[in-house]
Amino acid sequence: MLIDGIPKKAIESTNDYKIVIIDQTLLPHKLEYITLKNLNGCYKAIKDMWIRGAPLIGVTAAYGMFYAIKKNPSELNIRKAFDLLINTRPTAVDLRWALKKILNKILKFKAEDRATYAWQFSKELEINSIKQCSKIGDYGLEIIKSKIIKDKTFNILTHCNAGWLACVDWGTALAPIYKAYNLGLDIHVWVDETRPRSQGAALTAWELCKHGVPNTLIVDNAGGHLMQNGKVDMCIVGSDRTALNGDVCNKIGTYMKALCAYDNNIPFYVALPESTIDFNLDSGVNKIKIEERSNKEITHVSGLNSLGELSNVKIVSDLVASHNPGFDVTPARLVTKLITDKGICNANSKSISELFK
Amino acid sequence: MLIDGIPKKAIESTNDYKIVIIDQTLLPHKLEYITLKNLNGCYKAIKDMWIRGAPLIGVTAAYGMFYAIKKNPSELNIRKAFDLLINTRPTAVDLRWALKKILNKILKFKAEDRATYAWQFSKELEINSIKQCSKIGDYGLEIIKSKIIKDKTFNILTHCNAGWLACVDWGTALAPIYKAYNLGLDIHVWVDETRPRSQGAALTAWELCKHGVPNTLIVDNAGGHLMQNGKVDMCIVGSDRTALNGDVCNKIGTYMKALCAYDNNIPFYVALPESTIDFNLDSGVNKIKIEERSNKEITHVSGLNSLGELSNVKIVSDLVASHNPGFDVTPARLVTKLITDKGICNANSKSISELFK
Repeated sequence: MLIDGIPKKAIESTNDYKIVIIDQTLLPHKLEYITLKNLNGCYKAIKDMWIRGAPLIGVTAAYGMFYAIKKNPSELNIRKAFDLLINTRPTAVDLRWALKKILNKILKFKAEDRATYAWQFSKELEINSIKQCSKIGDYGLEIIKSKIIKDKTFNILTHCNAGWLACVDWGTALAPIYKAYNLGLDIHVWVDETRPRSQGAALTAWELCKHGVPNTLIVDNAGGHLMQNGKVDMCIVGSDRTALNGDVCNKIGTYMKALCAYDNNIPFYVALPESTIDFNLDSGVNKIKIEERSNKEITHVSGLNSLGELSNVKIVSDLVASHNPGFDVTPARLVTKLITDKGICNANSKSISELFK
Repeated sequence: MLIDGIPKKAIESTNDYKIVIIDQTLLPHKLEYITLKNLNGCYKAIKDMWIRGAPLIGVTAAYGMFYAIKKNPSELNIRKAFDLLINTRPTAVDLRWALKKILNKILKFKAEDRATYAWQFSKELEINSIKQCSKIGDYGLEIIKSKIIKDKTFNILTHCNAGWLACVDWGTALAPIYKAYNLGLDIHVWVDETRPRSQGAALTAWELCKHGVPNTLIVDNAGGHLMQNGKVDMCIVGSDRTALNGDVCNKIGTYMKALCAYDNNIPFYVALPESTIDFNLDSGVNKIKIEERSNKEITHVSGLNSLGELSNVKIVSDLVASHNPGFDVTPARLVTKLITDKGICNANSKSISELFK
């Protein structure tokens, strides 16, 4: 998508085997690119969340495997890199999917050929992600087109960041939005702040603004009120992991937005690439291990101080204990449709299995 | 309630016609008291939210009327003060109730007697608020007692601050919690951060910690996940305005918590004094004018920087537009019971009318 009119991607590979990412921890205050050249860089990029978002994590992890293999293509070393990378983020199924796929493929090659194929595979993953997201965008666009009313702004609420910053380009939840905007449709996006890391405020609002899509930031508490008062025409979110029955594991707070949409007869869509579906997981509620994240995400907030310097402030008393689950599970019964790169389906085993058979 | 073992109230009147409040905008970082001596001080205290919470606003506004009358007891001046104060916070019905009551009472007296009666009335309001909150606590305590299971921690979720800092003492939603804790019951409170002003993080967690009540701070997004996973035994919140049919207008985000409780068969209680009920309002959903607050509450956050100084940081890009409704309305169908100073009733016109006839 565009940054001030210039097309950009969240990860770009160069001809001399380097990859360039955006340090997303500095957004929306600073746009800084980081060049990754080795396994450790990719590990840190995922672990310290310089990059985040299920699809982007998968691609970055694959490049991390490439760097490990380039340095030492022995099976032992490859498995060591695999173990290192797979433990960076426990919830994301894309990470697991990408790493297992590269591991299984690469070990079939002779040691001296492995690096070449690992690069090729990672590059393919990168390009496929763009294609998948574009497909999701096309399918989602059809839904928007079928619902939008002439001379009336169509209001879409989204939670967290499932935009191009979470993928390579387009995004998942935001792909239909970019496609609709590029087509000149009259849309407006309500962006959930998405505490505690505020990916909505820092990333979604930023990328929509940079591309030019009209949007308004709200706190996570406000969506219910807006839905109750006819200010939301549809909700669309991404997914970090989707169970076979259609239960959706996504950023903490998604479940409540889905409940709210359901209570107000507003369609609630989940946009996801196939890699996010965990075909080994029958159902998600009470079954997916939820990543517990640092309490500092709750107790401290980063922003620009009056001098324009990035500053971290503590917003609670030292006495206070906190608890920080990173994701929740939205039951399939609250999901109107899944919008995937293979098409649109209902959030149930039958429909999912048919689409991905 | 206690601050480090010493009993404190959120507003205290002195014998020489001064009132002392806590500057709640500095909590949880600094505990500073402000002495109010005139109408303008009371006006600013409400308008700039040095104090907040429906009952405390009502009492402070009454004292504001006293100061106006003490200076000039003419009807014209009294009505001017009334107009000034009533426009400080559009949603709170307590404010309206207290101001109208004092206006109607005071004008019946001769000008020279008005100040004395205004002081008396304000003092009564202050004392009655404590009694009312204590009553709410007693009724709510009975509910906790009836639900708590031996040798098992009883988990209560609350949103925003409806504690003693919002009242004079005890609080509304927190009154049953303090009563249960003081009785030695094994309770634990999940405290919603309550963006954008973070009254949960700044006030509720602080006052619970200071009194000694076990509590854990969570972001507003987390409650759904906790309820879905059996970590919440009941929810209790306050109310800024309650319609005759039991619809509850309270801090933005309350509606979503109620939906969540309902979806997980967790009882959802609203604790409120009679003054919060708007007997002229048949129903609340889509009918109560919702206060729009400054966008700065969303875009800027205050906290202590690394030097321990209070600092305000901007957390979003300047490009971003935001929207900040302060309250939402929870439909009566999601409310298990209303816990009032007159007893417990169902959230419907019949039950409310019977209790308050």
